[in-house]
Amino acid sequence: MTIRSRAQRRRDTEARLNTDVDLWVASASADGIPYLVPLSFDWDGETLLLATPAASPTGRNLATSQAARLGLGSTRDVSMLEGTVEILAMDALPADLGDRFSARTGFDARTLKTPYL
Amino acid sequence: MTIRSRAQRRRDTEARLNTDVDLWVASASADGIPYLVPLSFDWDGETLLLATPAASPTGRNLATSQAARLGLGSTRDVSMLEGTVEILAMDALPADLGDRFSARTGFDARTLKTPYL
Repeated sequence: MTIRSRAQRRRDTEARLNTDVDLWVASASADGIPYLVPLSFDWDGETLLLATPAASPTGRNLATSQAARLGLGSTRDVSMLEGTVEILAMDALPADLGDRFSARTGFDARTLKTPYL
Repeated sequence: MTIRSRAQRRRDTEARLNTDVDLWVASASADGIPYLVPLSFDWDGETLLLATPAASPTGRNLATSQAARLGLGSTRDVSMLEGTVEILAMDALPADLGDRFSARTGFDARTLKTPYL
């Protein structure tokens, strides 16, 4: 095992943010029940965009706690990301960001009947 | 995408439990802060064995909540596992289970000075 420099780890993480399609999203309910799912994402250089049903455990947890911990990459070559969550209803999502997301992930939550965030 | 039968998914999950070395462990603090790490594991057919420092976020969360959600496999071929957590101090771990774990993972927490669970 080699230890990468901080700068190299940052470059490796940015490369994954630019090219990967899925990551792991850990969230928790207010009373401390953990939840974990893989979700598709988009990255515009500043913000990670995820889509999940509003009524799903992840949707409810992120809306309540506004805290997520994300795992990017495989278990043996991983970047862990933490951040605060901003909830966007589908109709508040700028069209260009929605287009980017659906082009990258092959999945357009705007076309679904199930309410997504 | 093909939908696997329940029996096939169970077989695929058991195959991963028998051969994979790492999985994703989501936990949460009592006040709902999620945490996520990849950890090595062993599986004896009934119980998943994990090792993590007692003072780590995962160690503290699992000891407090005794709830974990685990992700096995990659984001595109995944088994999600939920279960209750039993905390074993290192000196309460039967020697044969510790030997199995260290042979499978290449990591023997019994030899470390940091307190592990």
